[in-house]
Amino acid sequence: MRIDNAFTDAAPAQVLSDEQIAREENLVSEVIASFAGGGSERDRELINGLVRHLHSYIREVRLTEEEWSTAIGFLTRAGHITTDTRQEFILLSDVLGASMQTIAVNNEAVGDATEATVFGPFFVENAPEIAIGGDISGGAAGEACWVEGSVKDTAGNPLPGARIEVWEADEEGFYDVQYNDGRTAARAHLHADADGNYAFWALTPTPYPIPHDGPVGQLLERFDRSPVRTSHLHFMVSAPETRTLVTHIFVDGCEYLDKDSVFGVKESLIKDFISQPAGTPAPDGRDLEGKPWKRVAFDIVLPPA
Amino acid sequence: MRIDNAFTDAAPAQVLSDEQIAREENLVSEVIASFAGGGSERDRELINGLVRHLHSYIREVRLTEEEWSTAIGFLTRAGHITTDTRQEFILLSDVLGASMQTIAVNNEAVGDATEATVFGPFFVENAPEIAIGGDISGGAAGEACWVEGSVKDTAGNPLPGARIEVWEADEEGFYDVQYNDGRTAARAHLHADADGNYAFWALTPTPYPIPHDGPVGQLLERFDRSPVRTSHLHFMVSAPETRTLVTHIFVDGCEYLDKDSVFGVKESLIKDFISQPAGTPAPDGRDLEGKPWKRVAFDIVLPPA
Ligand SMILES: [Fe+2]
Ligand SMILES: [Fe+2]
Repeated sequence: MRIDNAFTDAAPAQVLSDEQIAREENLVSEVIASFAGGGSERDRELINGLVRHLHSYIREVRLTEEEWSTAIGFLTRAGHITTDTRQEFILLSDVLGASMQTIAVNNEAVGDATEATVFGPFFVENAPEIAIGGDISGGAAGEACWVEGSVKDTAGNPLPGARIEVWEADEEGFYDVQYNDGRTAARAHLHADADGNYAFWALTPTPYPIPHDGPVGQLLERFDRSPVRTSHLHFMVSAPETRTLVTHIFVDGCEYLDKDSVFGVKESLIKDFISQPAGTPAPDGRDLEGKPWKRVAFDIVLPPA
Repeated sequence: MRIDNAFTDAAPAQVLSDEQIAREENLVSEVIASFAGGGSERDRELINGLVRHLHSYIREVRLTEEEWSTAIGFLTRAGHITTDTRQEFILLSDVLGASMQTIAVNNEAVGDATEATVFGPFFVENAPEIAIGGDISGGAAGEACWVEGSVKDTAGNPLPGARIEVWEADEEGFYDVQYNDGRTAARAHLHADADGNYAFWALTPTPYPIPHDGPVGQLLERFDRSPVRTSHLHFMVSAPETRTLVTHIFVDGCEYLDKDSVFGVKESLIKDFISQPAGTPAPDGRDLEGKPWKRVAFDIVLPPA
């Protein structure tokens, strides 16, 4: 009997005896049966799916005992580098696209609602509140960037007072939580005005690498993949009777746009950060000290709760 | 468009928009493409299969963000309990049947060759050598058990001098490496005689639990699964020009035979450990001090290398 292999980089298809196939299939059934006696229906659905896919994988790729050992070693090293502030298993999920797929599954497309993307590890509760037109940078270094837009529901109604959380890395690629001095910078929250509009000063986003000195970094290196996240500004937007949106906007033209290490980029979230030459007056009359700056528009649409 | 769900305990099938399906499928393609630029052909086959199955799993079960977090937490706890002497990821692989499936894939049925089973974590290199008819117990407590048989190749030729490693738990369910005093007990190696026959004294095997005070133990408990391994005696048998066999023999009638926690049992490896009433003379004239004992026959067939 012939096992056809669906992979692009497939090994030659293998010929297995009926007896061998029966042994392998019986084992899968036996494992599934072992989980039948407990847990909730959902627990069983989750574990059965896991068992089926895990066994299909081992059988399809004809995993060798050495490769199995390598996988055990990888997981062990990932476990040992993981601490309260360094989460190698999340990084692994991220670089395999599993985090993004989970977000896709839980944020189905609804009308013209804005697409969601990864939450990332750098959000902090209770970031300072700023007024509309305020500055989130808190002294972090970077080029000034004016961000403006509206918050509406999928029926096109403005959402006055919608809460907007924003956070980003500084021009060196570090979030404030990666500083050693406990400062809060480059993060804030604000509320949309009575017409559902908002605006604030931020920093023009720059690319930064995810932590890559562990097994996940080695995995990326093995496949010549960059650990860099393309330039982005994080948003979390909420309003009554709508679904909370976790997303980013991405900088059109960033050299990492087509190779974001965690697959966060959605076409609809790529925005034109328009260069404003030195001397261009700011929308709010701010003194930009003769430096160039940027401006970007991001209109947000929240789906129903 | 309708996604039909193949699980026995399936949730109601979900209706997904074409746009949603396209988003999910595009993400899988994007992740696969990210791995195309490096590694060996086999590396790519392994990672592509992993990505495909991981994403299929998330999409099929419609994994929630909370369930994803639970999985990350599980792996983190498994990583943190793992040490040089406690390997929670191997236990996880064992209780999901992945270890046994890997063994099945790498030990295809060959004629009447003896079936392989899990290696387990308790093998030790350089166990003491005993003569044929010697005793492996090294003072470990348990009922005496006479083990005898032959070692042949799949053509039926005896394999004189074949090396036979044997190891097992004592009657309390502990291997010597779990003692605190560094003693060697209940393990040895011997060589088949000029006719390919062997015999030795061992202990009648008893059931024992795998370590179950960690996340894997909690998983088993959630599904009302026992952590117990059914009674067994480990063998590793090698001879020139044959494939080394790693296997166990299992005790017919053991109450855990149909619920071995690591799925090691193969019908062909279940043996009749025949009770010998007190006073029954031993095959080698040994003084059994008026106690009952057991005897078992195990004829071993090694496949070609
Ligand atoms: Fe970020
Ligand atoms: Fe064992």
